[in-house]
Amino acid sequence: MMTGYYQIEGRHLVAVDCIIFGYDIRDKDLKLLLVKRNMDPGRGEWSLPGGFVKEGEGVFEAACRVLNQLTGLQNVYMEQSFAYGDVNRDPGGRVISVTYFALIKYLDIDPVKQKTSGAQWRSMKELPKLVFDHRKMVDRALRQLREKVKIKPVGFELLPEKFTLVHLQDLYEAIYQRKVDRRNFRKKIQSMNLLEKLDEKERETSKRGAFYYRFLPANYEEFTRQGFYFNLDVS
Amino acid sequence: MMTGYYQIEGRHLVAVDCIIFGYDIRDKDLKLLLVKRNMDPGRGEWSLPGGFVKEGEGVFEAACRVLNQLTGLQNVYMEQSFAYGDVNRDPGGRVISVTYFALIKYLDIDPVKQKTSGAQWRSMKELPKLVFDHRKMVDRALRQLREKVKIKPVGFELLPEKFTLVHLQDLYEAIYQRKVDRRNFRKKIQSMNLLEKLDEKERETSKRGAFYYRFLPANYEEFTRQGFYFNLDVS
Repeated sequence: MMTGYYQIEGRHLVAVDCIIFGYDIRDKDLKLLLVKRNMDPGRGEWSLPGGFVKEGEGVFEAACRVLNQLTGLQNVYMEQSFAYGDVNRDPGGRVISVTYFALIKYLDIDPVKQKTSGAQWRSMKELPKLVFDHRKMVDRALRQLREKVKIKPVGFELLPEKFTLVHLQDLYEAIYQRKVDRRNFRKKIQSMNLLEKLDEKERETSKRGAFYYRFLPANYEEFTRQGFYFNLDVS
Repeated sequence: MMTGYYQIEGRHLVAVDCIIFGYDIRDKDLKLLLVKRNMDPGRGEWSLPGGFVKEGEGVFEAACRVLNQLTGLQNVYMEQSFAYGDVNRDPGGRVISVTYFALIKYLDIDPVKQKTSGAQWRSMKELPKLVFDHRKMVDRALRQLREKVKIKPVGFELLPEKFTLVHLQDLYEAIYQRKVDRRNFRKKIQSMNLLEKLDEKERETSKRGAFYYRFLPANYEEFTRQGFYFNLDVS
């Protein structure tokens, strides 16, 4: 790999930090997976899960490794958020950090891995104090998530395979942290024809029950191929 | 700065690459500032202006330095585009590159600096072959610029202080690389009340002339403070 070019320049520690969102369908609560930092400085403080990028490892691959070590998950939705490059952002040394936000299904996480790592879900509504500039990282990723779920069907990554329209609306309300007009929301989602109505009802939350739906990726592909855009902008 | 933490980890070369957009109001042409690479590998090939991030230098500051060395400009609109972290993206070695796109006024550039550096404006409509993954970097930045000019008044960064409504529409057409409906465009821009009509006409392009306008940042601030959003989405 190293061919001898560029040998005179400065080298830097590069880290990845992962903003891992999960959605608790029962509590209607958007949650973030956090760890307690196991090294100085800041040992014992709440932190985003992260790690240093190794030699011979891509930056995205490093983020996938961190996510997998914590959750056992692979091939989940993950998107680069921002590269934080201020000289003094980490009191432990000059570390450039690239952040990614991931959307995972809350219940798919490997309980053994979570326990071993000490990772804990915390509500976005009451995050603890985070180490260094991690709160800024979370805030930016949340803004990006809010913009994203309006124009791409990525919200479904946070829901179980089958869900009701109420679940879907609750999810958007949890992401936006405010109420959404029900009629407008349903009209928009139905007009895109991306959901399959199942022959099965959810009966836990009401006696009458609500039909389950399933997101159809193939319909979405066809929808975009025809030049349409996903639009759930209900803000 | 280095306090002794994190000493055992791998270190990486980190570079910045700048996607510097300028707008030629006469040719109605969006242009990109390019240089010929002065080092191996790829010596002599067309390249984005870039450089390695130095010790004790922030990543954003490095991008500002590269821009300033080439153009003499400071405090211009610059936004992070993406961090490219694939192991093999640069055949000269493992280099992580953070890209920024900048919007500058075409005529404000320092001709001496430009000449010394050999930097050249090239039309976005016919870019030469670029070294490594630089074309991918440009394409992403252009997509981001197209999204941005719809929702933020950053297009004015590319225009001279005073401009006609035709100039403004030409700019959007050059960025989108397609025609825009004139009536709809004018209606949208006028409705936001962000422009001041000057007492002066541009007479080069028509006998009758067209009034010059000026963008009013203070009006935009007031506009957003009142909860409105800039919207020139004419796509």
